[in-house]
Amino acid sequence: MTVAVVCGGVGAARLLRGMIQIVPDSELTAIANVGDDIVLHGLNISPDLDTIVYTVSEAVSAERGWGLEGETWQAMEALGRYGDTNWFSLGDKDIGTHLYRTHRLGEGATLAEVTGEIAKAWDLNFTLLPVTNDVVRTMVTTADEGEISFQDYFVRRQHDVAVTSVRFAGADHCQPAPGVLETINSAERIVVAPSNPAVSIDPVLAIPGVRDALIARRADTVAVSPIIGGKALKGPADRLLKELGREATAVGVARWYAEVVGTLIIDEIDADLAPAIEAEGVKAVVVPTIMKDKADAAALARVCLS
Amino acid sequence: MTVAVVCGGVGAARLLRGMIQIVPDSELTAIANVGDDIVLHGLNISPDLDTIVYTVSEAVSAERGWGLEGETWQAMEALGRYGDTNWFSLGDKDIGTHLYRTHRLGEGATLAEVTGEIAKAWDLNFTLLPVTNDVVRTMVTTADEGEISFQDYFVRRQHDVAVTSVRFAGADHCQPAPGVLETINSAERIVVAPSNPAVSIDPVLAIPGVRDALIARRADTVAVSPIIGGKALKGPADRLLKELGREATAVGVARWYAEVVGTLIIDEIDADLAPAIEAEGVKAVVVPTIMKDKADAAALARVCLS
Repeated sequence: MTVAVVCGGVGAARLLRGMIQIVPDSELTAIANVGDDIVLHGLNISPDLDTIVYTVSEAVSAERGWGLEGETWQAMEALGRYGDTNWFSLGDKDIGTHLYRTHRLGEGATLAEVTGEIAKAWDLNFTLLPVTNDVVRTMVTTADEGEISFQDYFVRRQHDVAVTSVRFAGADHCQPAPGVLETINSAERIVVAPSNPAVSIDPVLAIPGVRDALIARRADTVAVSPIIGGKALKGPADRLLKELGREATAVGVARWYAEVVGTLIIDEIDADLAPAIEAEGVKAVVVPTIMKDKADAAALARVCLS
Repeated sequence: MTVAVVCGGVGAARLLRGMIQIVPDSELTAIANVGDDIVLHGLNISPDLDTIVYTVSEAVSAERGWGLEGETWQAMEALGRYGDTNWFSLGDKDIGTHLYRTHRLGEGATLAEVTGEIAKAWDLNFTLLPVTNDVVRTMVTTADEGEISFQDYFVRRQHDVAVTSVRFAGADHCQPAPGVLETINSAERIVVAPSNPAVSIDPVLAIPGVRDALIARRADTVAVSPIIGGKALKGPADRLLKELGREATAVGVARWYAEVVGTLIIDEIDADLAPAIEAEGVKAVVVPTIMKDKADAAALARVCLS
């Protein structure tokens, strides 16, 4: 079965870890958010793409959930000496990836081309596509600082600040990367990963053509709720939904996605929400959704495809 | 006494380590070679400037003689995964310096400005100037590979290849960095450090105006011979002089510098060469010139200024 997975970072990476166990590489395409991308110290950093690569290739730091196992931080400390920005931690191994990406982009390669090269270098053989080769930046408006970049909000402020709105700067001028719309149009199943709807999935949908393509495939599209028992497993999805005037529940997620998703997979703990979700016109599937290990991930992936 | 030191890398850095002990910071200016500079992985690397900063601030690796003490190599290994060039070793700490330099140059700072910032960050308070803010590249023509860059010759080929000629690509279009000519014009003493005449000092002299400024100050200019007993202490200076048809002795050095240098400081082992040097119109001063430690360096610096 050909499968397209619409991805943010950590939650998506964990689901992909399951997908690769049950979908042949040639039939699996991940379409990832690049709204979180940032240029720091002159380096082009694509956190969601890297989280996917590092996680699916089992190189991610289990403790941190991002970055690489066995990482050191010497370049970062050296940059501190020069007074450069140091709120965004870059490990030394990880910098190798950013140097390669930056260098190749400087040579004129597209982000999709470089991403393919990086994935191959980590022995990943499914297709990993940034949703666009162009520049889109997730910007959040905060109560106290006005509009700041996503990483500024997420890392520097540790998402500990109220958000009044989110926008995807530059999205209108972006084109989907080659293969993105074709994959959405032709995949037998489309899965929206358990990522943050407001700041991980929405910037993918904001790229012209992507939302419409998904709307056309609504019947074959399933999402996994990133909200479990009213909480995000990781990150600020629950707070963000509330701050943006939504309900921080699987029902809120169903409403958010109702236009593009025919089915929402929710956790057993939220079984009682199924009727409210179906009332939104979204089919609810109740299963365990917490992915503690590869077996959990494969089981959830299997549900996504059933 | 105001002092200008014309510098290559390691030998110059060691002499400067002595100079700072006896010359007030405000009276000391180092003018350094940038012909060895290279862009790798998108990073602007200035080996001689960094060797000077790391050595004078006592942070250099004593074992290697270049790069930093306590260095790790994780970014480099990561780059290896992506198949990027790996013949030029970049330590993780060192990459911090290159990232800072590259980032600041990208913001429009000049190399001299960034160099000043880097030196300050290492608590160096004398003036360290790249000879130019523009791009000059030392190119060597080899018997077997044609013309290659200096680092390609020096690092990738481990200078184990015959050189038929050297040129400084782009030098004609360079301007001396602000302060370079003024310093040469006004310094009470000018010292040409014990660096490689052909590939470390000559690219400094090749910047328009520098050679002429030095010629005008010949009487106040002393050089320290980098050739001791017919050998270079480090690097290929002896072989290079021979390959370029010169004599690999202190006399050969005197001939190389005769136009710009009134006095050549030679090692005691070469005392018998003094008459031949003076026959070239260059005064010879015979002292111990090998700098094993800071005290040796201070003693040699004192001779340079006497």
